[in-house]
Amino acid sequence: MSLLVLGTVALDSVKTPSGKRDCLLGGSASHFSMSARLFTDVHLVATIGEDFPLHERDFLRSMKLNLDSLKVNAGETFKWEGEYQGSLNSAVTLKTELGVLATFDPSVTEKQRGIRCVFLANTDPVIQMRLLKQMRKPALVALDSMNFWINSKRKDLLQVLKMVDIYVVNDEEARSLSGEHNLIKAGRKLRSMGPKMVLIKKGEHGAILYSDKFIFPMPAYPVETVVDPTGAGDTFAGGFMGYLAQSGKVTEGVLKEAIAYGTIAASFNVEAFGLERTSKLTIKDLRNRLSKFRKMMKF
Amino acid sequence: MSLLVLGTVALDSVKTPSGKRDCLLGGSASHFSMSARLFTDVHLVATIGEDFPLHERDFLRSMKLNLDSLKVNAGETFKWEGEYQGSLNSAVTLKTELGVLATFDPSVTEKQRGIRCVFLANTDPVIQMRLLKQMRKPALVALDSMNFWINSKRKDLLQVLKMVDIYVVNDEEARSLSGEHNLIKAGRKLRSMGPKMVLIKKGEHGAILYSDKFIFPMPAYPVETVVDPTGAGDTFAGGFMGYLAQSGKVTEGVLKEAIAYGTIAASFNVEAFGLERTSKLTIKDLRNRLSKFRKMMKF
Repeated sequence: MSLLVLGTVALDSVKTPSGKRDCLLGGSASHFSMSARLFTDVHLVATIGEDFPLHERDFLRSMKLNLDSLKVNAGETFKWEGEYQGSLNSAVTLKTELGVLATFDPSVTEKQRGIRCVFLANTDPVIQMRLLKQMRKPALVALDSMNFWINSKRKDLLQVLKMVDIYVVNDEEARSLSGEHNLIKAGRKLRSMGPKMVLIKKGEHGAILYSDKFIFPMPAYPVETVVDPTGAGDTFAGGFMGYLAQSGKVTEGVLKEAIAYGTIAASFNVEAFGLERTSKLTIKDLRNRLSKFRKMMKF
Repeated sequence: MSLLVLGTVALDSVKTPSGKRDCLLGGSASHFSMSARLFTDVHLVATIGEDFPLHERDFLRSMKLNLDSLKVNAGETFKWEGEYQGSLNSAVTLKTELGVLATFDPSVTEKQRGIRCVFLANTDPVIQMRLLKQMRKPALVALDSMNFWINSKRKDLLQVLKMVDIYVVNDEEARSLSGEHNLIKAGRKLRSMGPKMVLIKKGEHGAILYSDKFIFPMPAYPVETVVDPTGAGDTFAGGFMGYLAQSGKVTEGVLKEAIAYGTIAASFNVEAFGLERTSKLTIKDLRNRLSKFRKMMKF
């Protein structure tokens, strides 16, 4: 199945213990696409400003992404500036300039409305809902969100959560939205809000999937040199959703494989700045590291 | 092989969101023994005061632990009072009364000197060293430590680390002693201090073993109702060391199995206060849950 992703395309400035980069192509939709593209054709729904560098647009096209619904709007591209210190676990946001994101109203082509696999990357839940309503009959909808929306647009988030199959969320946010510290309890409570499954991302500690039928904990692939963790969660989601879209079914076995692919994709993402590593990634790279990981974990 | 553990036998007062208990039998050696005893005969080296309840001593004996080197000394038994709040990840220590622990000088019987598998649970590194020097020719020595000793007796800790095979340590402490945030780097640096292997405990996030030949990450068994995490790390170490002692060899395969058994043992420990659950544990309970865990993780 084809895969449609709603998210952001951004220009990031990032500082980590490994160095500093300005004006990196980033954003949730970009990171997501870098891993998802290895499995299926990816349709990107996002907005950029008139200042968006031409070569970055060419780059996205060279990645074989469908850009029919990447809208250029009057104004500046969304910009994010952040810094990671010692722990590299979470960024300190230094600056956010919404630019064209502030008035973004997503729309997809008639043909794209029929795409059956949809990922709503982290963005305003009102926009996520607006996109979702345009889709004809999606077979699989997953959604990511963030503390910012949990706090500022909780009602809208709860509304759109009712319409999704898989809620992809990090542990801190899962605890915050559910009010439960224990992740099994959090998973159950979040599932009672609508999603059939909850996939909790724990960064360097891996991920864990909760469904009504099974729980699947998966450690992260151990990476020695973390250069820039920006977009790791989106890259994880891209590998996960890409694999599901390609498989065309959502069985326990397929879900577990999908999480493994997401885990491996994310491990590549953190090894370089921005999309440097993931834009060069091949399915063979993923498979090789996954087979190493499988051997590592076997007992 | 038999297994000798040096550690504490304590009387704990614990408050968690699930309730409050006073004068619980606890301490690193007690928790360690509860899981280790399921695999091999365990010799306990510790001290208690004259106030130690007779029925607790009978209880330890009923667990088939060898108490030849459990010394009763003039004074009070070591007491710890702690409270866990929301996260249950780490306790706030409210009170510590060292009692007889302050002047503890461990000694083992002539026969015990020949025991080949030794665990030095968290205690003063000077005492750990003193015990270790009494052992004739141990085949496998593992050691646990804590921030308190890393900060106050770093030199002594580094000394004894040179003589151990496996350093069992939690993630925060691994980072603190190595000065490295990345756990792979921390693992390597700690190994360069002496131990052939470093086993890092990450609480609800599982554990990860670093050797020169392989890395083994293992998620925790998901537990929905965490009643009291006190002693989880020691119970983990007990399952791990017990399995190794029983196996009599330290291959990659055996180490991985051992970590799996430790993980499962710890998951039982947190489900009840003190030793309530682990004192009733059977090897069959461990095997059943491990087989469930294996199935859960299979992909």
